[in-house]
Amino acid sequence: MTEAAARRRGRRTRTESASTRDRILAVAREEFSARGYEKTSVRGVAKAAGVDPALVHHYFGTKDQIFEAAVEDAVAPVLHAPDAVADGPLDDVGERLTRFMFGVWENPVTRTPLLAIVRSAVDNEAAASVFRRLVVSQLLGRVAGRLGRPDGELRVELAAAQLVGCAMLRYVIQVEPLASVDVEQIIARVAPVVQGHLTGP
Amino acid sequence: MTEAAARRRGRRTRTESASTRDRILAVAREEFSARGYEKTSVRGVAKAAGVDPALVHHYFGTKDQIFEAAVEDAVAPVLHAPDAVADGPLDDVGERLTRFMFGVWENPVTRTPLLAIVRSAVDNEAAASVFRRLVVSQLLGRVAGRLGRPDGELRVELAAAQLVGCAMLRYVIQVEPLASVDVEQIIARVAPVVQGHLTGP
Repeated sequence: MTEAAARRRGRRTRTESASTRDRILAVAREEFSARGYEKTSVRGVAKAAGVDPALVHHYFGTKDQIFEAAVEDAVAPVLHAPDAVADGPLDDVGERLTRFMFGVWENPVTRTPLLAIVRSAVDNEAAASVFRRLVVSQLLGRVAGRLGRPDGELRVELAAAQLVGCAMLRYVIQVEPLASVDVEQIIARVAPVVQGHLTGP
Repeated sequence: MTEAAARRRGRRTRTESASTRDRILAVAREEFSARGYEKTSVRGVAKAAGVDPALVHHYFGTKDQIFEAAVEDAVAPVLHAPDAVADGPLDDVGERLTRFMFGVWENPVTRTPLLAIVRSAVDNEAAASVFRRLVVSQLLGRVAGRLGRPDGELRVELAAAQLVGCAMLRYVIQVEPLASVDVEQIIARVAPVVQGHLTGP
């Protein structure tokens, strides 16, 4: 086999694998979103993706690991966007975090998988553990590191509690008037609270 | 029939009805707590209570209405205790509400049904509607009324968002260090935020 042929073959194999893997992942995201963690099965994901269950296990491992991959895929914008959010000046980090969080929730494309994660995390220990590891350690841990204070983690979590609670009442439980009021009104009231938790006395 | 006999019969009938009704309600609470809203059925509640499903319908109506009665029963301490919480002086209502909320969550007797409600409300529209009507209209509406401001409801909901988010991260998803830190440390940081939402500029 020539080098070029090997490269072509390698490329094609990688591409085919990637597309099967991606298809399984997309199906898994849909299934977890629609049915929740408990009611989703490896067998069901395999069937919907048109592959053998063994192939799902081959690519992703256990159901917990498939869920984790699906969540990681779904929250990629939350985990990877915030370089600018976490790295900018500390004196308006509260506003950046608040705007970022509401931006993700106001966008229907990112809201749907987030709703699925929140629903699963509330209902299931495996899902809660994925939520803790991905969202808390990765996203919040970076902000806590920047604060450089011994109580940095607790500060970040209380700030996150304000944002998580807003998301619960506005997007999940849909309490009025919070569910319908213009998002800028909420940001104006919440950003100073988030800032206070992070850098206040 | 003498008056005394009628009274006795009336009393006995009322007592028997009350005890059957209470037994069904207690079973329903357990079933909803253990299985969640979706997986609980009127038939299952009736079977566990040792009665005919028709009797469950007779006392409570539809599944939504049974759920509502079970939730109302479970959150009775949350709905009925806060006379003192809502009626005291406005300048420390934030601390009273915060202490009250954490008191209910720190007590295992009230925490279990609350967890069940939160889990159901996140997962199900009927449950979310009960949550909105009971917790939001009754408990938060009373506090909002006391504030006497046009944006009173929004203020109360943003304060509630801080408390709901704390409950989610500490008791439901159990994020560390928030899940293990002494509750007084959280109250000291959260009460001023709740107060600020309610009576701040």
